[in-house]
Amino acid sequence: MINETYKHMIGEKSVIREIAETASARRREIGAGNVFDFSLGNPNVPVSPAFTKAMMDLYANTDSQTLHGYSPSTGNMAFRERIADSLNRRFGMQYEAKHIFPVSGATAALAHALRAVTMMGSEVITFAPFFPEYRPYAQACGASLTVLNSDPDTFQIDFEALESTINEGTAAVLINTPNNPSGAVYSEDTLRRLGELLERKQREFDHDIFLISDEPYREIVFDGASQPYPSKYYRNTLSCYSFSKSLSIPGERIGYVAIHPEATDADLLAVIFAQISRTIGHNCPSSSMQLAIAEIPDATSELGVYETNMNLLYDALVDLGFTVTRPGGTFYIFPRTLEPDAVSFCKKAMDYDLFMVPSNSFGMPGFMRLSYCMETAQVEAGIERLAKFVRENY
Amino acid sequence: MINETYKHMIGEKSVIREIAETASARRREIGAGNVFDFSLGNPNVPVSPAFTKAMMDLYANTDSQTLHGYSPSTGNMAFRERIADSLNRRFGMQYEAKHIFPVSGATAALAHALRAVTMMGSEVITFAPFFPEYRPYAQACGASLTVLNSDPDTFQIDFEALESTINEGTAAVLINTPNNPSGAVYSEDTLRRLGELLERKQREFDHDIFLISDEPYREIVFDGASQPYPSKYYRNTLSCYSFSKSLSIPGERIGYVAIHPEATDADLLAVIFAQISRTIGHNCPSSSMQLAIAEIPDATSELGVYETNMNLLYDALVDLGFTVTRPGGTFYIFPRTLEPDAVSFCKKAMDYDLFMVPSNSFGMPGFMRLSYCMETAQVEAGIERLAKFVRENY
Ligand SMILES: Cc1ncc(COP(=O)(O)O)c(C=O)c1O
Ligand SMILES: Cc1ncc(COP(=O)(O)O)c(C=O)c1O
Repeated sequence: MINETYKHMIGEKSVIREIAETASARRREIGAGNVFDFSLGNPNVPVSPAFTKAMMDLYANTDSQTLHGYSPSTGNMAFRERIADSLNRRFGMQYEAKHIFPVSGATAALAHALRAVTMMGSEVITFAPFFPEYRPYAQACGASLTVLNSDPDTFQIDFEALESTINEGTAAVLINTPNNPSGAVYSEDTLRRLGELLERKQREFDHDIFLISDEPYREIVFDGASQPYPSKYYRNTLSCYSFSKSLSIPGERIGYVAIHPEATDADLLAVIFAQISRTIGHNCPSSSMQLAIAEIPDATSELGVYETNMNLLYDALVDLGFTVTRPGGTFYIFPRTLEPDAVSFCKKAMDYDLFMVPSNSFGMPGFMRLSYCMETAQVEAGIERLAKFVRENY
Repeated sequence: MINETYKHMIGEKSVIREIAETASARRREIGAGNVFDFSLGNPNVPVSPAFTKAMMDLYANTDSQTLHGYSPSTGNMAFRERIADSLNRRFGMQYEAKHIFPVSGATAALAHALRAVTMMGSEVITFAPFFPEYRPYAQACGASLTVLNSDPDTFQIDFEALESTINEGTAAVLINTPNNPSGAVYSEDTLRRLGELLERKQREFDHDIFLISDEPYREIVFDGASQPYPSKYYRNTLSCYSFSKSLSIPGERIGYVAIHPEATDADLLAVIFAQISRTIGHNCPSSSMQLAIAEIPDATSELGVYETNMNLLYDALVDLGFTVTRPGGTFYIFPRTLEPDAVSFCKKAMDYDLFMVPSNSFGMPGFMRLSYCMETAQVEAGIERLAKFVRENY
């Protein structure tokens, strides 16, 4: 008796993975240099040397039980303290170690945050375009996901829609800034208005509404700007962070949830997360990873290439007649397709060995996502091919 | 609105952790040398040098994306291949890479195996004494856990009880050998009878009944013996393994589920596990850990000290008048307490700074668990203290 729920999920294959698999097959056929794959969001810059050095030092100087022994159920204390310090210093927060809960990546951060603040039948609201995995994450908690459109020019929140949607059953609002796939960075104004609206709605419905803030791209922001820290603007915020993108270590599975010190049950939430870990078989991320990152909480890889690539792509897309909003961060760009049907557009592009993801996957028709975590020369070659495709078809 | 389910779980504090915390507090008060803590099962022998070398070599010679990039959703191929080879070589199995699914420890292995083969309302049968976390693991799948007694002298399965208990709703039988807390090693005879019984019951009820075999102590077996491999004796077996104990790396969170090649849906189960990972926010274990273990699939730490300690403790317990079954493996021993109420016995022992876990935690009254993952000198000192306690009270 194999559980049919999971069997059925296999049928609903991820479109992004399917495109990536087709691109891989094509690479084997005609060689990697002839395939222009803008489909996958896998960091390409090397891991930060500071990370490698921290890990080597630990292996050289730390006894086996400290390095490889079980973490306490709420995580390694050095990690929790150093992350709290770092966030306090960078964003003027007042975290203590007890507000930081180490997890295995943003995926696990969201699994814990969503389970903690929803129950069977709760509503979670998010904004299109959105990371498609939010749907299985919410479903797994028995919560329903309500998707609202963002402003299609700026990809900031449409507050009228949000105002009229939040209801008695709304347990959480889930945001992602900098955003996958649009590259939008929520402005201070957006975050302030969001905080005010949520405060008002909490009073109106007389219960907590949590803001779950998914921030794996927090460190990838362009033009010397930085992402305003969402938790600054709203007390009941759970910040979900991952080192996958900032340190280029997505395979290592490490991140954290940071609980706003004035959130409801702030001092209890990490202990609640530890209970959630028990039920989902999670436990902490790798002990040595926690210790390494505790040594270098602020380190990042050399992320500059993403900005170089974005500028090249943005200018090229504008030149080619695409309507496109300039990304404020991430390694994605999200132009409108040159015909209304994004799936059809991206399918035709595949005949040119150009791989891009139609926006339907992100809950919004008529756009496509190009990922540019690749070497700049590859971006340039891809642009040439895109120009050829557009010239010959539109 | 914080989910009350998890809040309530905090109340049901783990007795083992509570004892360990009391022991820790005592250590701070009177010094570690004066506290005799047999409560916690945390490996104390150092990590295998082969593991450290494999990891150092990887850091020196592997490019960043191979070492730290996302694993495929069913895990790193080198890991899957090398584990399949190792199990085939050691146990005469016929695994292919597709039957091996890497997970973050036995905890995650059980989370995946249980979810795959149960649904809301399914029954899972296990045998006391048992690892207390099985209860939250089963509950989290919506399954009920039925606990049968083992033979109290041998801790082998009571087949009459099992025969009369398995019913239409039984989805899985969960075993743990070598056993925490009894130290019992299921014999070939036990495993053969179990396999035959399950085959017969599958035919009787005309549906699959899976054997979930939790094997984190597989490599810790005494007297030059070894653990007969449960999956050899029953087709529908999911073997849940962890490197926590064999390599002394419990904090690193790595293990696997091995799917018997002739199990129902054997070729699909790893893909189903990947879908389960999505819903519980798991993803694969650390990529570098998978690569390191792929290099040394058969390595273990120097596990001999556990056997030395077991022999000392076993002889001392017999001398002191305890009724005790000699463990075949693990780093636990499970004597009857000298009064019927194990909780009262262990409580009195705490006045002597002796910390042992009453067997009620393991679903069986009248016994206690002593863990001996410590230096032999500590075991000797603990034995002296135990003798004093027994002399003055019984
Ligand atoms: C918006 C968003 N959230 C979460 C994740 C998952 O991140 P992690 O690999 O740290 O689990 C991703 C990964 O691409 C993402 O883009
Ligand atoms: C019987 C048993 N199963 C599972 C586990 C969990 O092991 P891991 O740390 O690999 O998740 C333990 C740990 O003590 C155990 O004793």
